[in-house]
Amino acid sequence: MQKLATFKPFTEITPTASIIVAQHGGRAKCLQRLRRLNMPMPKSIALSFEAVHGIASGRMPDLDRLMRVFDEAPLLSVRPSSEDPDWGGPGAILNIGMSDTRYEEMIPRKGEAVASRLYLRFIQTWAAQVAHLDDDLFDADASPTRVTVEAALRAYEMETDEQFPQDPAVQLTGVLRSMARAWETTSARLLRQAKNAPADAGLGLIVQGMALGVGPDESGSGVIQFIEPVAGRPQITGRYLSQSQGRDALADRAGAIYLTRDPRGPSLEELCPEVFDKLIEYGEECRRRLREEMQIEFVINSGNLSILDAVRVPRSARANVAIAVSMARDGILTPAEALLRVEPRALNELLHRQVDPMHTVTPLLQGVAASPGAATGRIVFTSDRAEAMAAQDEACILVKRETNPEDVRGMHAAQGVLTEKGGMSSHAAVIARGLGVPCVVGANMIRLNRREKTLRLPGGKLLREGDVVTLDGSAGTLIDGPVPLLEPATDAALGTLLEWADEVRDIGVRANADTVEDARIARDFNAEGIGLCRTEHMFFEENRLTVMREMIFADTAEARADALKQLLPMQRSDFGRLFDIMEGRPVCIRLFDPPLHEFLPHDRAGMLELAGSLGRPLAEVQHRVEALQEYNPMLGLRGVRLGITVPEIYDMQARAIFEAAVDVGKTGNRVVPEIMLPLVSAKREVEVVRARIDTIAAAVRADTGVEIDYKLGVIVETPRAALKADEIAAHCAFLSFGTNDLTQMTYGLSRDDAGRFMGSYTRQGVFPEDPFHVLDRDGVGELLSIGANRGRAAKPDLVLSLCGEHGGNSESIAFCREAGFDYVSCSPYRVPVARLAAAHAALKSAEF
Amino acid sequence: MQKLATFKPFTEITPTASIIVAQHGGRAKCLQRLRRLNMPMPKSIALSFEAVHGIASGRMPDLDRLMRVFDEAPLLSVRPSSEDPDWGGPGAILNIGMSDTRYEEMIPRKGEAVASRLYLRFIQTWAAQVAHLDDDLFDADASPTRVTVEAALRAYEMETDEQFPQDPAVQLTGVLRSMARAWETTSARLLRQAKNAPADAGLGLIVQGMALGVGPDESGSGVIQFIEPVAGRPQITGRYLSQSQGRDALADRAGAIYLTRDPRGPSLEELCPEVFDKLIEYGEECRRRLREEMQIEFVINSGNLSILDAVRVPRSARANVAIAVSMARDGILTPAEALLRVEPRALNELLHRQVDPMHTVTPLLQGVAASPGAATGRIVFTSDRAEAMAAQDEACILVKRETNPEDVRGMHAAQGVLTEKGGMSSHAAVIARGLGVPCVVGANMIRLNRREKTLRLPGGKLLREGDVVTLDGSAGTLIDGPVPLLEPATDAALGTLLEWADEVRDIGVRANADTVEDARIARDFNAEGIGLCRTEHMFFEENRLTVMREMIFADTAEARADALKQLLPMQRSDFGRLFDIMEGRPVCIRLFDPPLHEFLPHDRAGMLELAGSLGRPLAEVQHRVEALQEYNPMLGLRGVRLGITVPEIYDMQARAIFEAAVDVGKTGNRVVPEIMLPLVSAKREVEVVRARIDTIAAAVRADTGVEIDYKLGVIVETPRAALKADEIAAHCAFLSFGTNDLTQMTYGLSRDDAGRFMGSYTRQGVFPEDPFHVLDRDGVGELLSIGANRGRAAKPDLVLSLCGEHGGNSESIAFCREAGFDYVSCSPYRVPVARLAAAHAALKSAEF
Repeated sequence: MQKLATFKPFTEITPTASIIVAQHGGRAKCLQRLRRLNMPMPKSIALSFEAVHGIASGRMPDLDRLMRVFDEAPLLSVRPSSEDPDWGGPGAILNIGMSDTRYEEMIPRKGEAVASRLYLRFIQTWAAQVAHLDDDLFDADASPTRVTVEAALRAYEMETDEQFPQDPAVQLTGVLRSMARAWETTSARLLRQAKNAPADAGLGLIVQGMALGVGPDESGSGVIQFIEPVAGRPQITGRYLSQSQGRDALADRAGAIYLTRDPRGPSLEELCPEVFDKLIEYGEECRRRLREEMQIEFVINSGNLSILDAVRVPRSARANVAIAVSMARDGILTPAEALLRVEPRALNELLHRQVDPMHTVTPLLQGVAASPGAATGRIVFTSDRAEAMAAQDEACILVKRETNPEDVRGMHAAQGVLTEKGGMSSHAAVIARGLGVPCVVGANMIRLNRREKTLRLPGGKLLREGDVVTLDGSAGTLIDGPVPLLEPATDAALGTLLEWADEVRDIGVRANADTVEDARIARDFNAEGIGLCRTEHMFFEENRLTVMREMIFADTAEARADALKQLLPMQRSDFGRLFDIMEGRPVCIRLFDPPLHEFLPHDRAGMLELAGSLGRPLAEVQHRVEALQEYNPMLGLRGVRLGITVPEIYDMQARAIFEAAVDVGKTGNRVVPEIMLPLVSAKREVEVVRARIDTIAAAVRADTGVEIDYKLGVIVETPRAALKADEIAAHCAFLSFGTNDLTQMTYGLSRDDAGRFMGSYTRQGVFPEDPFHVLDRDGVGELLSIGANRGRAAKPDLVLSLCGEHGGNSESIAFCREAGFDYVSCSPYRVPVARLAAAHAALKSAEF
Repeated sequence: MQKLATFKPFTEITPTASIIVAQHGGRAKCLQRLRRLNMPMPKSIALSFEAVHGIASGRMPDLDRLMRVFDEAPLLSVRPSSEDPDWGGPGAILNIGMSDTRYEEMIPRKGEAVASRLYLRFIQTWAAQVAHLDDDLFDADASPTRVTVEAALRAYEMETDEQFPQDPAVQLTGVLRSMARAWETTSARLLRQAKNAPADAGLGLIVQGMALGVGPDESGSGVIQFIEPVAGRPQITGRYLSQSQGRDALADRAGAIYLTRDPRGPSLEELCPEVFDKLIEYGEECRRRLREEMQIEFVINSGNLSILDAVRVPRSARANVAIAVSMARDGILTPAEALLRVEPRALNELLHRQVDPMHTVTPLLQGVAASPGAATGRIVFTSDRAEAMAAQDEACILVKRETNPEDVRGMHAAQGVLTEKGGMSSHAAVIARGLGVPCVVGANMIRLNRREKTLRLPGGKLLREGDVVTLDGSAGTLIDGPVPLLEPATDAALGTLLEWADEVRDIGVRANADTVEDARIARDFNAEGIGLCRTEHMFFEENRLTVMREMIFADTAEARADALKQLLPMQRSDFGRLFDIMEGRPVCIRLFDPPLHEFLPHDRAGMLELAGSLGRPLAEVQHRVEALQEYNPMLGLRGVRLGITVPEIYDMQARAIFEAAVDVGKTGNRVVPEIMLPLVSAKREVEVVRARIDTIAAAVRADTGVEIDYKLGVIVETPRAALKADEIAAHCAFLSFGTNDLTQMTYGLSRDDAGRFMGSYTRQGVFPEDPFHVLDRDGVGELLSIGANRGRAAKPDLVLSLCGEHGGNSESIAFCREAGFDYVSCSPYRVPVARLAAAHAALKSAEF
């Protein structure tokens, strides 16, 4: 006691008292702010975190002194006040101070019903929260009478063998102790840690005089806010319930009335017009002076208004954007402050369909939330089937053990993708995010039977092809049947916010875009160019696949070049359309990357068909397929290694790029294509390919008479390329860090295979985060820094960027900005997120 | 001419002349040394590299001045003198100066036969080497008479329309120009570059007065050496042929005679005892004063001895060791010099059987020489068959598309291994080198038909199971049928040399040893311990494999632990035997590393069998097999990741290690086992596993009452582990760099898949060397340095080592020594190589 006293264990909340969020919690601070706005508020005392921790450990502060702050014999409430309201806390306890004596005194003044209601509420709350008795001890629906009060007291005594406590000090002691201890239980700690609270987060408590809300004349309680929480439009929302306390008006919707005039029934505006006007005024004051949309808890006591509490209005991401922009427009916030009010990752919620959060669902399974958004459709098990469904305009969810490049068209056709294997960076996850298709991966509890076209769930439930399900890629769940979905919202407020972001940010944002659709989205989201155009998908369309296979089976360089010639006009058109859409913005094309075996069939039927179409014996096809198989395709014959050993592919691509640039340049913007080499590990690889590309450029120049300008760069994906960035940069205009592969190789960890244990690893804290999800600053980040520094040292005007999956993450963007990168490139749907995150990074660094 | 003269284009070779190897070549220097030993030698003039290069470019030095050095009208020879005799050069040309006039003058003095022999030789050599006429222009077997001389002159005139040159200056001009130009042709340049000559290697020429070797009294020429070239034993070897020139004695064995007395015929010792004695004396002088075993070319002219030339005796690696040790024993060399006379990699030749180099073979195919040595046996296509053959003591060569861990026993049973796929670091190559089994990989021109058990070669030849072949793992070839093989030679000289090496070297050498056999070899080769004991092979023995599979199918941790309990006594005995053999030397055990799917069958038959033995439905087995499949096993769920997610395996291994150490410690040497964790990428992985191992150690201590001491370390295989070596070292007693995996991940290159293009890459110079073969100092080496420096900074007494395949390479050993590593560990058969290489590194660094 002695010791605690020196820390001022409790403080009356007055406009000038020292109330600190980090010592007394957010609610205490908010109450002080309301008091500073001269709102009518019962006397309130804040207990500090330290005091509450002391109470939990058995050190009770001087309650007599505390109670002396209040008028003679008040009724009191105690409410929690943690540092961040989101971290939760024990429920409020009202009407402390009610006792047999007080009850009898009150009946003549307020009537039996009011007195009984107050006493009953306290008895029941005490029994549940302080004495930890069973819920069903009391009749929940009992009407407030002397009989029910006496029954409740008897029931309490029977259960506890003790009289219900009558001394207000004893009551307050019990309430404070139970709330302090509730905060420190393991389950409460785990709950708040899940919301990112620190392990030693403290709890403050507020002891407040009761404004009763029950009594003669108009008495009651209610909640009001001035904004609707889904779109963030101005709209008075709330409920009021006569003769009620706390948040009863929200719980008992039947008896509650509207706040504003409403044809459906009476309203507070009509019932107590002065109170209503005052509430409107207070709301406006909160907005202007507290600079936030607040939800206000109020009590009317015999016609007099008291404000008990106010909290930030819970809201959707969309509403949050609208509120921030509106307050900035009204001069309440600066645009910079408005930007910082919106978490970049929250934009994901706006940009995709969502399961209506008001609708309660029981998921069939929980996987890894790999690509945000929700979709309803019929289950299909093959990409072909998904394409067939799409052709009939039928929505479908593609379910596969895992996806591979041949599935990209099927994934595009499907409304959602579910895979049994894989993690955040598996093929399915990466492609789905790029396509903006909701996706759940790593659902390794399911059992797929592709032959019977069924999907068995953990509990034994069986789903069949054609069954309707809803996939929630934001939550990582699958839900039986259709559920209500909210549409994506890219409204004007978001546009305004992102314009402000663009004014503030000082690092570029491009999009990873492989297709015409991607490029359009990228442009519509104002990406400054394409930072990564992967070209391999272009070879999987059916007529092209046949040519690729001919090429693979060709025996000479000439025969390969001949086969590839058929692809030249198609590739030229691919690139031409991208250049057109991007209207002169830079387009960075990564040359062919995957191993050739991805283009060959792996089952007997496919090989037989191929043998037929090539006119070669099956044995030869089988032999070639086997010969091309690899143990670790990620580390095999692909990327620039193919560019060097089968140079005809890069030759064809370079020619297609240059010819497309010439074509587009004739009618529109001049195009200076950027050509990027994958999987480089030594400078000589760049020299060798550069020499061939230069030759092609010269040939196209000779053919067309048009000067060809291009930039050659390297996607830094191997640790060695980062280490040798100085030598490599000597041959490059730019280096772009491909953090997906770089993370794989730095950790020795395949993103496709990591899913099986990454969950267990992050749960055990072996890795603090999935490094494919959050850039590993320590390890991969050091290689990025080494590569950037050495590259720039060798070539000061070297353009640096990051184009891995991490490109859209706040942490990586901040990292790239600090490292002096020129831009990040992310999937088109993350461009808005990245623009905002880049603005945050610039603003936050300016703060220091 | 003016300019060349200032550089002294020619120099008479006198004891005091300025003759420099780098300007005049090795032969010129050697001749000067012989002259300094007062050997009788015709006058000789050295033309410098620069002069010869000038001649090739058309600038002929002042030949009149040159010829004035000699007596009036001499006959001359011209011989090449490159910097290193191994780099080749044009053939010598003799008898320059012969002309019609000279011929006629000579007949009366020396006889028609002698004069004709001299002239004919010159005409024929000139025609071939200077005039580039066809070989068949002259009758090769023509006897030396006036008729044949005249016929040769006529043939020459018919062919060239010119008279045969008669002016000695014109002749010398032609000879010098043709030899100078021959050196600068592309094919000559490629040939010497293949022997590592620099691109600008120069050629010197030596113009020497002829000691004729033909004439009255005893005249002739011969070659003598004092050592036999296979074992290096002292033995006078050579041939002498009367009335001959140059090396005729070696070419015309029929007419040649022995040098020493021989029951089979006459000898030089009998014919010219004084000359013979003189030659013996000269040989001894060469050995003592030139400090080398020389092969001497001599001429007897009417009984007078002339020494024309001497070269280092060509010799086997074994002879080279014997010679170096013998010269050091005789005080001619210091032991350090003797050590430096032997190339470490040459020891490979001594330690394995070799195809007799005297026997000419035509290989059936050329692959990658993956493990040295040669073996003859019958072709088999499966490991089972190889084991069956071994059981019958029949030698076999195992031929597979590729090998996997299940083949290790088959590889052990076979005498040689040939695989279609893979490179220097494929599974087959690594294991074969470890086992000391000859191995050729990457023979991708063959077509295996496993069903029909045939092997089709490029030319169409078909080999069947049971056919006898010889595999030459040193040359990378397969040879039809048996061929004569030389046995390995680990004789006393080698032992002495390695003892000297151990005295000199200052970095430790341990062996990678997985089995009892490996450990015995390691100990017999004096390895200082086991630096890497891989434990996975221990789980492939049939009874153990069954247990592993039970473990994989167990559904709970308890069931897994139960299954593994059956393996405990076996593992304890595995480790106990290793500890026993190593007699107290340290043994570093790497815990279980491979992915679990390696232990499951992949074909339907195997799965059916497994389903039967486990009593589970086939569908479940199939599902589990599929679920465990990985895209990139190298980067998947293995190593410490398994140790954390399936901790029961490491628990069992740790217990087995500790119990074995206790058992062995009771009767013999105290064992402090070293336990090494694979595939670590974050310090927390080490913390988590260390905690469990400590618990096991405490349990074994409690069970046995014996104090348990052990060292925990990490094999640094991921780039991230190298970057975070400071954090990781905090939990470790040692770090060992596993350069195989580290190279794979630094390059993003699977060693199993690299074989398909590495040849093309190194041929094109994209990579200067196969980085799995020669440590990549630039990239991987930087990670090694970073890891070593950070590790030592965090923990100064950290033990550092390298245990990858590079451990036995000279370059890597020098690198590790400079980086302050404590030891390298290599396959047992490379231990002698590593000991010598380590001595070289120490000696070479002391030189500076």
